[in-house]
Amino acid sequence: MTLRIEVVATDGEARTGTITTARGSFGTPCFMPVGTRGAVRTLSSADLEDLGAEIVLANTYHLMLRPGADVVARLGGLHGFMAWSGHLLTDSGGYQVFSLSPEVDDDGVTFRSTYDGTTHRLTPEGAVAVQEQLGADIQMVLDVCPPLPAPPEVIRTAVDRTAVWAARARKAHRREGQAGLSVGESRAEMLDALDACVGGLPSDRPRYLMGVGDPVGLAEAVARGIDLFDCVLPTRLARHGTVLTAAGRLSLRSAACREDDAPLDPSCPCPVCARWSRGYLRHLQMTGEPGSARLVTIHNVSWILALVQRLRTAVEAGTLATLRTELAEVWCRDEKGPR
Amino acid sequence: MTLRIEVVATDGEARTGTITTARGSFGTPCFMPVGTRGAVRTLSSADLEDLGAEIVLANTYHLMLRPGADVVARLGGLHGFMAWSGHLLTDSGGYQVFSLSPEVDDDGVTFRSTYDGTTHRLTPEGAVAVQEQLGADIQMVLDVCPPLPAPPEVIRTAVDRTAVWAARARKAHRREGQAGLSVGESRAEMLDALDACVGGLPSDRPRYLMGVGDPVGLAEAVARGIDLFDCVLPTRLARHGTVLTAAGRLSLRSAACREDDAPLDPSCPCPVCARWSRGYLRHLQMTGEPGSARLVTIHNVSWILALVQRLRTAVEAGTLATLRTELAEVWCRDEKGPR
Repeated sequence: MTLRIEVVATDGEARTGTITTARGSFGTPCFMPVGTRGAVRTLSSADLEDLGAEIVLANTYHLMLRPGADVVARLGGLHGFMAWSGHLLTDSGGYQVFSLSPEVDDDGVTFRSTYDGTTHRLTPEGAVAVQEQLGADIQMVLDVCPPLPAPPEVIRTAVDRTAVWAARARKAHRREGQAGLSVGESRAEMLDALDACVGGLPSDRPRYLMGVGDPVGLAEAVARGIDLFDCVLPTRLARHGTVLTAAGRLSLRSAACREDDAPLDPSCPCPVCARWSRGYLRHLQMTGEPGSARLVTIHNVSWILALVQRLRTAVEAGTLATLRTELAEVWCRDEKGPR
Repeated sequence: MTLRIEVVATDGEARTGTITTARGSFGTPCFMPVGTRGAVRTLSSADLEDLGAEIVLANTYHLMLRPGADVVARLGGLHGFMAWSGHLLTDSGGYQVFSLSPEVDDDGVTFRSTYDGTTHRLTPEGAVAVQEQLGADIQMVLDVCPPLPAPPEVIRTAVDRTAVWAARARKAHRREGQAGLSVGESRAEMLDALDACVGGLPSDRPRYLMGVGDPVGLAEAVARGIDLFDCVLPTRLARHGTVLTAAGRLSLRSAACREDDAPLDPSCPCPVCARWSRGYLRHLQMTGEPGSARLVTIHNVSWILALVQRLRTAVEAGTLATLRTELAEVWCRDEKGPR
């Protein structure tokens, strides 16, 4: 099944819409928390439901090696395994495999497992078969990801080979799926690349920018017509005690938090801000209590989901330009200033 | 205020009852999850509410050093700090301080912080003052805990000094509190000690056996008239992937769990057993996912609280002997058998 998007409203190039899979529908722009191995780090699928997350990302490379796609299939597919009834998108594993200096040929790629050193092979058709075993609602095609920087001819070969692999994956595919776009450069380079390519994409298909989840990156990409995002940033920052707030980043390791009885973000309606103080959460962080990471993760994911909701609302109201300016004022200052 | 217990039912030496503090009442026998630094490891106070825990243990030594009893007091006392409206019992810190080879004299004890090497002093009166700052519902007296084994005269001196310190603490005390009993020997030695001393304790005061939380230890101590327990066993086992079940201990690291779609304990009504399989929880454990420890902790604490509830019910029904036999059959076999 070709994945389509029904566009609901536009504001310049930005758009809101609805993506429908065999499982149901979800709204865009949409941020997908990252659950690489079938769990978002520190959270359970019950936590994800409470957060109102509609779709979660999982990773083919990691799950095919541990516990094995066959094991996941026998335990009910990834939905049954995780006990998660929302949408699941699986990354193809291309990015992980190509970080292992694999042997690549026209047919596929051979690599060694980072878990136990055993040799494995992925082809475009094989990646589709594994993702079918996992039971993903949305699949990614096996892509060639050369390390950057790379000469233009290497990039060109990678793009050409990925396009051929995408066609082979499409043919092998018996359920549903779609292909995306990946960028790993500086924000300026990334936005230039989006400006150059989004105009050439069909407007009735979802546009997925992988690995972007910072507030300004989200807003600027939405302004250029992107629908889907994923990023480990909110969860990884949380595990290091860094909090996303309306006033920018807040480090719980800062001495100013020691006796602060304010919530992490006074404007945030999440259950963590409703109940615990910065002083308490700093104490848990400083003493290495394992519950700390989960509470800050709940806040940060809630905060990012709420930001994407604000972006949706702004697109519908035609006020995205104002929101972009507001976010740039807080976060570009924060990027330059002291942490 | 002297802490009293209202005995509700008895079965031999065993009893159920109600303990009332300024905060309210809770039933006994009672197991208190251990929240050393103001958090039960991997759990939040919301999780503790969901588990139905009525009282949690915290530790004076750790909290007076990090973040400091004054900081806790300014952030609402330990109840406000943790956002926990249930009961709190604070250990005096004696056990921790005496594990640091401190300098002891008749007046008190001088020790070095394990956090930063600074020197601190605790006296019976000082320990009361710190626990008042923390806002504990039930305090413990600063006790002398010599390393075991020790010659009888060392034990006698420690008991005598603790008795003098208890009288000084009682005099210094302006709110409410009580003193307990601590045992660290083998189970047989512990039960012999209980047999020797419980008969000499007043029946209208709570009896607290610190550091016991294994199923047979709980049942045998309840049978000897103990009311209160705490132990890190259920939470520590959980972080290592060891599960408490009706059939004994289960290690998630066992290969038999790999494709097992059964819940951790098929007879357990906890939310983890209602939702996730052994196969999924084993996968999280084997790949080091941080969410694993919390889910197994929720199960193990829920399981122990349910066991203590079964002990209460058995005392009320006069069937404690039968339950002791059942538990010994499962758990004494488990102690001898392979893990």
